[in-house]
Amino acid sequence: MSFELPLIYPITDSNISGLTHAEQTARLINGGAEVVQIREKNLGAGEFCEAATAALVVAREHGVPLIINDRVDITLLVGADGVHLGQDDLPPDAARRLLGPFAVIGYSTHNLEQAVAAAAMPINYLAIGPIFPTGTKANPDPVVGLEGLRAVRRALPQIPLVAIGGITSKNVRSVIQAGADSVAVISALLREPDRIDESMREFKRL
Amino acid sequence: MSFELPLIYPITDSNISGLTHAEQTARLINGGAEVVQIREKNLGAGEFCEAATAALVVAREHGVPLIINDRVDITLLVGADGVHLGQDDLPPDAARRLLGPFAVIGYSTHNLEQAVAAAAMPINYLAIGPIFPTGTKANPDPVVGLEGLRAVRRALPQIPLVAIGGITSKNVRSVIQAGADSVAVISALLREPDRIDESMREFKRL
Repeated sequence: MSFELPLIYPITDSNISGLTHAEQTARLINGGAEVVQIREKNLGAGEFCEAATAALVVAREHGVPLIINDRVDITLLVGADGVHLGQDDLPPDAARRLLGPFAVIGYSTHNLEQAVAAAAMPINYLAIGPIFPTGTKANPDPVVGLEGLRAVRRALPQIPLVAIGGITSKNVRSVIQAGADSVAVISALLREPDRIDESMREFKRL
Repeated sequence: MSFELPLIYPITDSNISGLTHAEQTARLINGGAEVVQIREKNLGAGEFCEAATAALVVAREHGVPLIINDRVDITLLVGADGVHLGQDDLPPDAARRLLGPFAVIGYSTHNLEQAVAAAAMPINYLAIGPIFPTGTKANPDPVVGLEGLRAVRRALPQIPLVAIGGITSKNVRSVIQAGADSVAVISALLREPDRIDESMREFKRL
């Protein structure tokens, strides 16, 4: 289970970018992404599986790990590097049973209680958020804030911690200073699809 | 791949019955069901997985096969007997790869063209519908009708064929006569939750 979280953790969103997951993956990697998560809430599983396969081809060409949001079966089928699970998805221990000891399993939490519970689960990293208000999710959980992030970091000094939700080039430094090992970024990278790679480079310079 | 389709193929729906999948499974089996498919479109995968586990305990107690709608990963995790896939779900060959040669795989089709294509896939049975108008699905496909069912039967004389959509005690005989090996029933069995077992018995007597 040795998965090194990069500082910037980009996640695809075809609603925001208007691009395929493979194309978003290519642009993000061109901008220096060291991991990509693909997330798809509109397509059926069949189409998502095809999209994941195409994205994985791109990721493999560049040796970049690819994480699939939600679907453990698609992760297995395409042979992706891991899965990112939400509170309503299959639980991490179930995913671990299916994916084996070497898959990367990430898990979203939305408050200190969930984060502490998650730390005992067979996961490689824990996500916490939304740190700031976000427009990416239809029914977002209450904002955790930097203070909430600090509290999670204090309670769980060891666990690899990804902060997510409303993170931009303006606030990313404060999020890292509050204890995140990594920041997940969606809108701020994808909103201008023609310069995804440049946006990715800018984030890496911050 | 020797799965014998029973004449009546009940499918659970907690929206209609107001009951858990385990409770619906118990009542259907008490009424003589020889297979049960559990279908869940509202719960997250984690809760569906728990519901499937509970339903499988009931099914195993009675030696009745349990089929999971849509989620191949949940089918694998709980060790159910098979999965039923729709046109938007993972394709049957992907499910077969994950579930192995002995799992039951069913596949929904909605017209002759889809049915003929499906017949070449690694499935155990093919579902065709909606035969009649139905209220169970949010955006139902165009009605296939008995004539459409007959056309599928003529084109595919060998494949185990499940008719679905709007089937009631009043029209079930005509559906079998049109060539179905089995009829999937939801609303007509579940609408009166207090007499699911009796309704199941009535269907079996038809």
